[in-house]
Amino acid sequence: MRKTEELNETKLISEIEKISLVTQKFNKSLVIKSIGDDCAIFRDKNGMLVSTDNITENVHFTLKFYSFYEIGSKSLLVNLSDIAAMGGVPRLFTLSLFIPKNITEGNIKEALRGIVDIAKKYRISLIGGNISRASEFSISITIIGDYKDDNVIKRGNSKIGDAIFISGEIGNSWMSYYLQKRKKHIDKNCINLKNFEKKTIENFIGKFKLPIPRIKLAKELAAKKLANSLTDISDGLRKDIFNILNFSHGAEIWIDELPINENLKHIAGLLKIANYMDNVLSFGEDYELLWTAGDKKEEEFLNLSNTLGIKIKKIGRVVKGVNGIKFMKNGIKYSIKDFTFKHL
Amino acid sequence: MRKTEELNETKLISEIEKISLVTQKFNKSLVIKSIGDDCAIFRDKNGMLVSTDNITENVHFTLKFYSFYEIGSKSLLVNLSDIAAMGGVPRLFTLSLFIPKNITEGNIKEALRGIVDIAKKYRISLIGGNISRASEFSISITIIGDYKDDNVIKRGNSKIGDAIFISGEIGNSWMSYYLQKRKKHIDKNCINLKNFEKKTIENFIGKFKLPIPRIKLAKELAAKKLANSLTDISDGLRKDIFNILNFSHGAEIWIDELPINENLKHIAGLLKIANYMDNVLSFGEDYELLWTAGDKKEEEFLNLSNTLGIKIKKIGRVVKGVNGIKFMKNGIKYSIKDFTFKHL
Repeated sequence: MRKTEELNETKLISEIEKISLVTQKFNKSLVIKSIGDDCAIFRDKNGMLVSTDNITENVHFTLKFYSFYEIGSKSLLVNLSDIAAMGGVPRLFTLSLFIPKNITEGNIKEALRGIVDIAKKYRISLIGGNISRASEFSISITIIGDYKDDNVIKRGNSKIGDAIFISGEIGNSWMSYYLQKRKKHIDKNCINLKNFEKKTIENFIGKFKLPIPRIKLAKELAAKKLANSLTDISDGLRKDIFNILNFSHGAEIWIDELPINENLKHIAGLLKIANYMDNVLSFGEDYELLWTAGDKKEEEFLNLSNTLGIKIKKIGRVVKGVNGIKFMKNGIKYSIKDFTFKHL
Repeated sequence: MRKTEELNETKLISEIEKISLVTQKFNKSLVIKSIGDDCAIFRDKNGMLVSTDNITENVHFTLKFYSFYEIGSKSLLVNLSDIAAMGGVPRLFTLSLFIPKNITEGNIKEALRGIVDIAKKYRISLIGGNISRASEFSISITIIGDYKDDNVIKRGNSKIGDAIFISGEIGNSWMSYYLQKRKKHIDKNCINLKNFEKKTIENFIGKFKLPIPRIKLAKELAAKKLANSLTDISDGLRKDIFNILNFSHGAEIWIDELPINENLKHIAGLLKIANYMDNVLSFGEDYELLWTAGDKKEEEFLNLSNTLGIKIKKIGRVVKGVNGIKFMKNGIKYSIKDFTFKHL
């Protein structure tokens, strides 16, 4: 008899890492970097990057809030972000579709349209795939990218004293999802909302449903060797920050410096969401870049920010010791409350 | 509202092929061969092969008949067969696990053990992966292989007059599954079975639960340029034969020449399975190689067969015209009856 019990994901990942370690030696000259970063690296004329990720119904999306076109788009976008998180260029991908019986051909075509539009936009080629029956709709993608010379930025090379930088804004994906889920409730119960406020909410949902992989920015960071350590934020700043630190490093994050969208704050005020900062730090799915670098690189980031039209913000510092992450607000330690909101 | 309707898989595949065609041009120098063969080929110092495949609970296996160790093993073996079907050498793979709530950590570890044992056996390296919640257990693998010089055998280069060859035996996977499914029924109702006959059935189930990817044989076929066209049998001879023919070619298959295991025939007799040949031709999952070559290559295949200890059999011929496949038995056309047995 199989028992129902909670799965320890961390243990499971370490099991998989062990297999990776054991099998890596079979292709020493081929595998440059295996599991343990955003992508694996193997040998080509240029170096090649491989990463695999999936989005699954009722885990990463619900068909109530996402169109099939959006699901298709998102499935590829989250994979592109993994290539960006190394400073690489996405090139090729394979596609596995898991299709339940209640999904029509038209639905799948819509999802494929979402995929092909993103593929065209980022000039990447589909080179393989398969289809399988399943109970839930799921899209699994393996992406292959490349990079020139040694222009690739791994996760764990941060140095003590490094400043921590972040691109764009965080929390938008959370707020978009929160608003979608509460839309009916809001329409019914928040009768004091003015029309332009309702419009602000509407716009916010639409604008931040899909992530933007920061490929150009990452490529610049890599080409100019501006970052010591780089990752993307998929699981929330609170969790992903650990990816750019060595095990012997800690970090201080300055809450007041976090790039939060003005409309997010405004909507949080309108709807009286007191703990919004905890969700901003924990929800993830923003796919912004997170990196560390010496303070003297700050001016170059300012230039990059202006050239590419992407916000770049210094939000903290890598510190000595194994104290993990300290969030600071007005110079005082900030404790994240249990957040009310998680992935589906 | 989403409607429940049957999915047209062929149409869907052609949709995906279209995307492949549209996006291939973005990386002309990188993609040598995209969708439409057993693997995609892209550029490396050696050529690289990529393929993706998954096995899913209640579609490709049921937990009633397969241990988690066997499921793990099989998930990788079927992917290795895709690399073999090009004459390549498997090197790297990525792994996606879809895990339902009723699967324990121990179960997954067992599956991983199955995977790592196969990885060690074939000296391939795990270089990426991810885990997701799902309603059904599923393993999705992307495999990357390579090949030297131009030693790769595509599917559709058969020539009119070519003989058709097959490795090993077909139908064993079907019979193994059939016996598993009927085991209780057989034990209860076939009271005339002698003990050694029951033992034969038992042994058959165990022996043919997992496929053997024909990597060495395929590598020899490729290195010595012995085959014009090559694939593996995953969906049944009746279906996969089309993969090695050009659209303008037909084929004659000689039923009496098919390599059928003696015990399979014996058990079919014992259990009075009259239509076993139809199932042998239709069930698939044997992962044997299927290729075409000129008759004069036959002696080399005999040598290869002896060296590698793998049966090789001539089973038919590529013929003119677009008449599809003709199965012949004693010089008379053989019509495959509706087979009673399909994939789960």
